[in-house]
Amino acid sequence: MNLANKLNKILAGDLQAAARLMRGIDDEVPDAIELLESIYLHTGRAYIVGVTGAPGAGKSTLLGSLIPVFRREKMKVGVVAIDPTSPFSGGAILGDRVRMQSQGVDKDIFIRSLASRGWKGGLSRATLNTIHVMDAMGKDIIFVESVGSGQGDIDIARVADTAIVVLTPGMGDEIQIMKAGILEVADIFVINKTDRDGAETLRNGLEGMLEMKTYLPDEWRPGIILTEAISGKGIEELAREVLRHREFLISGTEMEKRRKERARLELMMAIESSLLTYVERIDRDYLDKLVDDLALRKTNPRSAALKVINPSTKQL
Amino acid sequence: MNLANKLNKILAGDLQAAARLMRGIDDEVPDAIELLESIYLHTGRAYIVGVTGAPGAGKSTLLGSLIPVFRREKMKVGVVAIDPTSPFSGGAILGDRVRMQSQGVDKDIFIRSLASRGWKGGLSRATLNTIHVMDAMGKDIIFVESVGSGQGDIDIARVADTAIVVLTPGMGDEIQIMKAGILEVADIFVINKTDRDGAETLRNGLEGMLEMKTYLPDEWRPGIILTEAISGKGIEELAREVLRHREFLISGTEMEKRRKERARLELMMAIESSLLTYVERIDRDYLDKLVDDLALRKTNPRSAALKVINPSTKQL
Repeated sequence: MNLANKLNKILAGDLQAAARLMRGIDDEVPDAIELLESIYLHTGRAYIVGVTGAPGAGKSTLLGSLIPVFRREKMKVGVVAIDPTSPFSGGAILGDRVRMQSQGVDKDIFIRSLASRGWKGGLSRATLNTIHVMDAMGKDIIFVESVGSGQGDIDIARVADTAIVVLTPGMGDEIQIMKAGILEVADIFVINKTDRDGAETLRNGLEGMLEMKTYLPDEWRPGIILTEAISGKGIEELAREVLRHREFLISGTEMEKRRKERARLELMMAIESSLLTYVERIDRDYLDKLVDDLALRKTNPRSAALKVINPSTKQL
Repeated sequence: MNLANKLNKILAGDLQAAARLMRGIDDEVPDAIELLESIYLHTGRAYIVGVTGAPGAGKSTLLGSLIPVFRREKMKVGVVAIDPTSPFSGGAILGDRVRMQSQGVDKDIFIRSLASRGWKGGLSRATLNTIHVMDAMGKDIIFVESVGSGQGDIDIARVADTAIVVLTPGMGDEIQIMKAGILEVADIFVINKTDRDGAETLRNGLEGMLEMKTYLPDEWRPGIILTEAISGKGIEELAREVLRHREFLISGTEMEKRRKERARLELMMAIESSLLTYVERIDRDYLDKLVDDLALRKTNPRSAALKVINPSTKQL
């Protein structure tokens, strides 16, 4: 099957073709990389929602309740799980819920877990590539579920159109928020498991922190939604808040700004990765020759490095 | 003063010129970088001894006793301290000892602490550059004092001609040795503070581990020296062991191998640093243009990155 055929299958939402491509990307098969490049040109339509929170905050259960709300609106859904503790790894929770809703497996929900593949935390090329494939498949909304642990999450939030931060009472979340700088990147705060003690304390602390920040008149001010994912309390409200934030982004220049930010991030990641490949491909014999020259003090490390890098001095 | 004059001053061992150059390198003054490149061609004569051990192992006190032994042989000495807990930061201990020996300040001992300048552990360009300046100044032996904490030390040992690992009884050192892989890189083991309980246990454990390793007939087998740095016990023996190791290196091909290894390490560090500089210098307007193209899906991240990197596509 040629490239155009494969591309068309993915654009038509074919699950098997998409799964095959994702495996190919993981294994760095040249054909897959080439297909991915074509696919990128057909992306940018899906709405991307980052869902970040500590392990055990109930992110998966929350998504399991939230997704059916969007499915009722006929929106096609993708889920990328990069939390290694997520039950999505097996697809269990969501699978069960979806079955409950639709009396069968819902083909318009595509779930992929990136948790087990050498996960190091934070944003990876694999995450972005998976988002692109789901986007090209025609998913209207893509949820990216990640652990709340520092710098990595801030990156996820940069990539998302809407960044949801999930907190739970009694987990020392206030300190976490301050530490991770998550206050700066969250568009919506969810206080989940509000049946637990301390939900009000957490809400008050969060509101206090939000009040310390000054917002411009046309700036988005993060809301706080209280949920109980298992009973479904607050879930409709959360879905409305996501759509309200999307309206906010589209009505102004913010959406364009976020998309450019994401493009810049991807460009810098691609440059970094290409430079690494470049170094790995430097001719070993040429390096050995330079090492000999250095050991004999015929040159110095900086000049030798520039010879390797600067192609006007030495073609590679 | 022109470059040749500055170079000659340093080659003549001028302390002020050397200190000025080191400050210039730290501040990335272009003249200083240029001078450093000239200096490199005059290096490779000094003998480099790495002294590694946990904070509190007594490395500085040990050096304070060891250095006078080499000074009595009229060897000129350099010390680079990259242990942030080293008393060399103020030069106190060594200064006192040297005064005791020579009834005045000894101008043939040059000490520089790199501990306070954004120290991150392990080997840095600053360490290597400082070694090069001292080498060019005509120091016969340069001691590099570093903390014993994992990968960083293994790098220090790669750069040293003789790697001394300093252990003390009752600090759980056996486990440290196994963990850090220091057994593989140490040329000489020192058990310091042998007046403490557990010195014999530590020696037995260490000997046991050394016996598990098989050595080729012409391979160096690390010795174990017991010292009490404060009383001076074992210090002469340690100095002899360093010189014996130097003889071993020179008599075979090992010295050349180590020097090449060091040159290779410096080359790779210089390539990495040049690539970073290269990325930092990419034209911002050109990047902005590519980001716009990406946001509009006129190109994909990988192709855009290759445009930036590959000079046949786009000259920078």
